[in-house]
Amino acid sequence: MSRFWSPIVRDLTPYVPGEQPRLEGLLKLNTNENPYGPGPHVLAAIKAEVEDGLRLYPDPTAERLRATIAAYHGLDAGNVFVGNGSDEVLAHTFKGLLQHEGPLLFPDITYSFYPVYCGLFGIAYRTVPLDAALQVQIEDFAPDAGAIILPNPNAPTGSVLPREAIERLLLAHPQAVIVIDEAYVDFGGESAIPLIARHPNLLVVQTLSKARSLAGLRVGLAFGDRPLIEALERVKDSFNSYPLDRLAQAGARAAYEDVAWFEDSRAKVIASRRRLEVGLLALGFEMPPSAANFVFARHPRHEGAMLAAALRARAIIVRRFDKPRIADYLRITVGTDAEVDRLLAALEEILAEAG
Amino acid sequence: MSRFWSPIVRDLTPYVPGEQPRLEGLLKLNTNENPYGPGPHVLAAIKAEVEDGLRLYPDPTAERLRATIAAYHGLDAGNVFVGNGSDEVLAHTFKGLLQHEGPLLFPDITYSFYPVYCGLFGIAYRTVPLDAALQVQIEDFAPDAGAIILPNPNAPTGSVLPREAIERLLLAHPQAVIVIDEAYVDFGGESAIPLIARHPNLLVVQTLSKARSLAGLRVGLAFGDRPLIEALERVKDSFNSYPLDRLAQAGARAAYEDVAWFEDSRAKVIASRRRLEVGLLALGFEMPPSAANFVFARHPRHEGAMLAAALRARAIIVRRFDKPRIADYLRITVGTDAEVDRLLAALEEILAEAG
Repeated sequence: MSRFWSPIVRDLTPYVPGEQPRLEGLLKLNTNENPYGPGPHVLAAIKAEVEDGLRLYPDPTAERLRATIAAYHGLDAGNVFVGNGSDEVLAHTFKGLLQHEGPLLFPDITYSFYPVYCGLFGIAYRTVPLDAALQVQIEDFAPDAGAIILPNPNAPTGSVLPREAIERLLLAHPQAVIVIDEAYVDFGGESAIPLIARHPNLLVVQTLSKARSLAGLRVGLAFGDRPLIEALERVKDSFNSYPLDRLAQAGARAAYEDVAWFEDSRAKVIASRRRLEVGLLALGFEMPPSAANFVFARHPRHEGAMLAAALRARAIIVRRFDKPRIADYLRITVGTDAEVDRLLAALEEILAEAG
Repeated sequence: MSRFWSPIVRDLTPYVPGEQPRLEGLLKLNTNENPYGPGPHVLAAIKAEVEDGLRLYPDPTAERLRATIAAYHGLDAGNVFVGNGSDEVLAHTFKGLLQHEGPLLFPDITYSFYPVYCGLFGIAYRTVPLDAALQVQIEDFAPDAGAIILPNPNAPTGSVLPREAIERLLLAHPQAVIVIDEAYVDFGGESAIPLIARHPNLLVVQTLSKARSLAGLRVGLAFGDRPLIEALERVKDSFNSYPLDRLAQAGARAAYEDVAWFEDSRAKVIASRRRLEVGLLALGFEMPPSAANFVFARHPRHEGAMLAAALRARAIIVRRFDKPRIADYLRITVGTDAEVDRLLAALEEILAEAG
């Protein structure tokens, strides 16, 4: 604490991202990255932008990128907002759309950045407990909600709600902004994007870091009715005019053009997830069904902390949250089949040693 | 205005960046970009990162980049903060370091993003008038300052203060954070970075968008005593864990390694600035001496609006601010010698026609 800090800084509890170690032979299953690199069309599009033009500012409105993504979803460019990763998009969303008289509601077990944003922007919130099976129950979101944010699929559980449930939530809270955070939707969820046309209170947030395999490029998206997007634009233009550099704009555009690569990559991840789930169940693990590129599993007879440490000793890192209700769960990213097999073999060995 | 907006959104007056038109044959002298593209070492370093690794998140702390820049300046990495362009660095600085009981002070004629940040974060500010010659007078910053921010060289005037004047300001306000925004320092200013060691209230902000010719890559920096940097880290980690993508980290690192390219490029810009100043003076323009990569000039017999429009009709765009005291000034970016000559020829023609 320093006398030079703005008072708000003292009370912040910053988010702690999953570690990014650089170790030889490490199997990194802790931050839900795609095991398959971006396609050649994307790499070529980025390389073509690595030239003299980097001396010039990027398009501050990312017009071509927004037009490409809008066309992909059958929307207008005015319904699309882009930012420096979905974390920045979420930050602007919290600031611009989620501060109201009623409290912001979100699940008690969910993306742990949400309460951090509330701290940064002074937003009052209340958490809504998942049920005993770690599922979101739409009916548990009380009528006093000033706004609601919900990942679908939820993280770190991987559980998904059908689009029909999202629409019930929208209809139950027509006066409140409802943000559906679809970081993982391409691995088995139904996007809420088609609901935008008839629900002016719906904002859908997505990312290119997961199914589109561009975590290293930092591109996030929001979709919504024009007034919601306009709020995000006003906040963005009061914060940083040029959030997306030239290479990110070019790479993201190319990623939406290469539909075949995208379909192939996510199909492979979904197949490997099945392999991982089957393998874990055979070892006695329990988990909610996952619609994401990770599973959230615990073993009824072994502590999560022990399992995570034993995996780390074998150069495999997974993510664990030292929090009530979920401390014994491991969040395991879906890798390639070979990586899934290496993880399962390590767990089998660990369970055998633990007896 | 929408009922879904957070109340703050209604009152925002967003910043309007200089336009980025894509027109054939346009001479773009409106956003102070470097006329020389980044060097081959930078382009090669970026291209080398355009591969499978883009599927992985970047280093959230940009450790290697901060170490490279710290070494360049003889500092520790803990004295360096990096962000997505200096606009993001400034945003975190306003949020984390500039909200205090006393008002934030900055010049009345300066970077027009400053009052926008104040609006976004609810920071009370007061402007300090430049003198009649458009110069900053250190003594005019009153003792009640909660904090001070000052570009040096100032924008859009281009005027510079010697380091000794910055130190007087620091000594006069030991209890207040003083931010020196050095976006243009490499074109003729003395950086305040050497003062960091003995002034714990000094934060210096820089950018790679100007002298290092990477406006399209979005990298900004801050330098300061450890507690100031820690405040920025806490805000950043409550906003977006990964502000700098992999390509930006690689390109920025390479830019600090290629000292020869940097020295050559800025020397050329400084020489062309002299050519521009001499030419403008010969045409009867008046301007404060510039230490930046632009000049701020007016003609005693012609309105700025007319001149800007006439240049635009000749496919040359410069920047004009429709504000008290400076509405007749044109802010003209220094281009190559050939670009300078084209601008001067156009102005000569315009003045001849206007009589």
